[in-house]
Amino acid sequence: MTILRISLLAAVAALAYGQERAAVETWVASHQRRIMGEFDELLRIPNVGTDRANIRRNAEFIRGLLERHGMQAELLETAGNPLVYAERNVPGAARTVLYYIHYDGQPVDLSRWKTDPFRPVMRDGAWDIAGWAALEKFPDDWRIYARSASDDKAPIVAFCAAMDALEGKFASNIHVVIDGEEEMGSPSLTAAIGRYRDKLKASLLLILDGPVHPNGRPTLAFGARGIVTLDLTVYGPKMALHSGHYGNWIPNPAIRLAQLLASMKDEQGRTTIEGFYADVPALTAEERRVLRSVPDDEPALLKLFGVAKPDAVGESLQEALQFPSLNVRGMRSGYVDEPRTIIPTEATAAIDMRLVKETPAARMVERVRAHIEKQGYHVSESEPDDATRLKYPKVARLKAGETMEAYRTEPESAEAMRVTLALTRMWGAEPVRIRTMGGTVPIAPFIRELGVPAVGVPIVNFDNNQHSDNENLRVGNLWSGIVTLAATMGM
Amino acid sequence: MTILRISLLAAVAALAYGQERAAVETWVASHQRRIMGEFDELLRIPNVGTDRANIRRNAEFIRGLLERHGMQAELLETAGNPLVYAERNVPGAARTVLYYIHYDGQPVDLSRWKTDPFRPVMRDGAWDIAGWAALEKFPDDWRIYARSASDDKAPIVAFCAAMDALEGKFASNIHVVIDGEEEMGSPSLTAAIGRYRDKLKASLLLILDGPVHPNGRPTLAFGARGIVTLDLTVYGPKMALHSGHYGNWIPNPAIRLAQLLASMKDEQGRTTIEGFYADVPALTAEERRVLRSVPDDEPALLKLFGVAKPDAVGESLQEALQFPSLNVRGMRSGYVDEPRTIIPTEATAAIDMRLVKETPAARMVERVRAHIEKQGYHVSESEPDDATRLKYPKVARLKAGETMEAYRTEPESAEAMRVTLALTRMWGAEPVRIRTMGGTVPIAPFIRELGVPAVGVPIVNFDNNQHSDNENLRVGNLWSGIVTLAATMGM
Repeated sequence: MTILRISLLAAVAALAYGQERAAVETWVASHQRRIMGEFDELLRIPNVGTDRANIRRNAEFIRGLLERHGMQAELLETAGNPLVYAERNVPGAARTVLYYIHYDGQPVDLSRWKTDPFRPVMRDGAWDIAGWAALEKFPDDWRIYARSASDDKAPIVAFCAAMDALEGKFASNIHVVIDGEEEMGSPSLTAAIGRYRDKLKASLLLILDGPVHPNGRPTLAFGARGIVTLDLTVYGPKMALHSGHYGNWIPNPAIRLAQLLASMKDEQGRTTIEGFYADVPALTAEERRVLRSVPDDEPALLKLFGVAKPDAVGESLQEALQFPSLNVRGMRSGYVDEPRTIIPTEATAAIDMRLVKETPAARMVERVRAHIEKQGYHVSESEPDDATRLKYPKVARLKAGETMEAYRTEPESAEAMRVTLALTRMWGAEPVRIRTMGGTVPIAPFIRELGVPAVGVPIVNFDNNQHSDNENLRVGNLWSGIVTLAATMGM
Repeated sequence: MTILRISLLAAVAALAYGQERAAVETWVASHQRRIMGEFDELLRIPNVGTDRANIRRNAEFIRGLLERHGMQAELLETAGNPLVYAERNVPGAARTVLYYIHYDGQPVDLSRWKTDPFRPVMRDGAWDIAGWAALEKFPDDWRIYARSASDDKAPIVAFCAAMDALEGKFASNIHVVIDGEEEMGSPSLTAAIGRYRDKLKASLLLILDGPVHPNGRPTLAFGARGIVTLDLTVYGPKMALHSGHYGNWIPNPAIRLAQLLASMKDEQGRTTIEGFYADVPALTAEERRVLRSVPDDEPALLKLFGVAKPDAVGESLQEALQFPSLNVRGMRSGYVDEPRTIIPTEATAAIDMRLVKETPAARMVERVRAHIEKQGYHVSESEPDDATRLKYPKVARLKAGETMEAYRTEPESAEAMRVTLALTRMWGAEPVRIRTMGGTVPIAPFIRELGVPAVGVPIVNFDNNQHSDNENLRVGNLWSGIVTLAATMGM
């Protein structure tokens, strides 16, 4: 039935295709210079989150920008950097779409930037386009280099342009909240909900952040995995012992840790901890279809990474990301480079578990703890004292660290389908639908606390050097991003 | 039958007990001041192996000392520091006993020494005994603090005193070779055999080095384990990957290494690599008796180390040391302290295998390699190239490093029994018989190359801070050591 529904959507979209998109693209083509001028101005204001003076300059500039584009805008003060908030309401509209963007950027390591991160340059391949601000047209494959060109100022400018392009033909109230601390983990955002609950109420939250799928097609993201980190330490003798004098007699904690970790995964990379996948419902046929429709080039990725065969948690990368994972991000014991032949005193594995919506952190940590206990370990959160060491043959310490829960808006839910339909109509093809992004996003607690359906609408190119030096935006992604955002405003 | 033989020895010993020992002890009692004076003089010559000038002063002094004690002595030049060599032959003797001692010492970290390591002080508990060189008697529990007080100058002085105490009543020719590079791994010793083969020929080699058993009783050591180190690396993706984006899909090398190490040992610490113990014959009843007779205080050791339960390779520490071992001395992958949530590119285990006489290094390395291959790995000695990574799902690098073979003179062999009998006669009780020392000694290749039965005759206290700061000798061990060495000269 759902397959039929999607086919129907595609048919409807095909009928409408052409007119709406042509209108927006025509508008964009004749306004490139103005849009690029605004973008250039915005990128010139340094936006590292700790640079309080410039952060406020960004916020004030954006408030003015939103007002010039027909919104009622204000700064919402928080415990940290201010949020920029704006509304454009439609008389009689039953729905409100709240957009989330952020204006702060990652810190910059000047020694690694080819040009000043806050003096945008335009490049065609390796060459600087001199005097580009005065041009009328900017080809799709040129790139603009500046901090936050992609992450996350392009969506601010595209959002404004999309409103202009639609010329007021909004189907819902348009609200926007622009975060000033995303790259610091959005510490003030969730707390601000209590203070500004009325302003943040919405039927749907659209998150304008992150890149589109590597193949460049319009993309929607319906969820992201959460994370909880764990430090697991297994104890050996109290002092490092001579491996000759005591090897074969005093247990080796590195071997013990290896045995413990080995007991947690099978040969195919599937976690063998009891109940690890138990709460995740089997994927439906339609869900599998959506996952399969993501145009990942898996052979190319494997070649790039130098990996002959992937783990078999799912049938594909996208399927694997629908499940919680257990990753050993680090392991340490004794001496590797120094020629010291000892039995180490302890061995530690630094673990991160990625979570999905159905597997909250506390429950998963408890499952890991239960598994370790089932392997015969005495488990505590602190270092064992002498009495504990002498009482239990196997002693481990398990300590949970950073935690962020997952979120997911079902791709088949009404609001998610509404956005999918809007993009399908506008582009004449179904967007890439990412059911669950593998990584963790700091907006997750905001979404969960707000209790509203949320969909990610990324617009920038995937190879944008986000968080790194020489961040850039492919110009064509700005233009197509305006089209995509206009689609979301007309629904 | 062997048990009968030992019982007979004990009976014979009991008959003789008293007279011989009393004679030596009486001699020692009246010569303490002279012995201590020689010891003091010898300890004042700095003996770090790289200090060529002082090393030669040591060698010259010891040559003179041996001559003053009735031997024909000379320096044997080598590629490194000279050997001191001396003979005292007995007309008509059919046998020659060659003693091995060493005169070089470990480097000193002056900041950690309470007093100058080359200005010996005598202490009774925490107090310096002023003017001790002029005393006539030195109680057993006093200690002399100096570099090489125990390792290995005490045996040089004890050896000279024992010859005097016996007043020429030698049963065999007495030869001695004193190494000047033991703490550097005796790099010139084995090579010197070719040049000085006639001088080094002997019926029996007695090694005067290392401490007696912690319980203080006279001790003989019949072998030592060898060692081969291995670095084992398992490969993941070519670059560290985001554990969110790729966790559950790209295999994790730390988990893979854990599974590989886990496949090498069972829960009781026994190695499960095929053939690992296959070449080691089962212990005979008599061998087990000898091992059981070693007065290890296992509960005290376990308490000291904070370990509730030992591994089960043998029934006891001594039995465990009769087998090769596989020890993970270090393990490293990714990041433990830094909060980086990645799939690491590789994971490495630094391994040392202790060897016994029946398990030469090359064969054991081959067994480990075969085991890894059996787990489905492509194994090479170098880092994999791109083609290798893409061809084989599981890729490992195995590289053998430092190697030293084991040695063992069967405790039941004629020469070993001869030394055991001599000590049993002298002391009226069987010595502690260590069939195999767990650690590795650099004299092993010398013994193997010389092809002569070898027995270790340690005399110093086990708590002597050997190789560390504030090295010391318990005075009583010098006196009892003279008695023990006299026993070996009278056989």
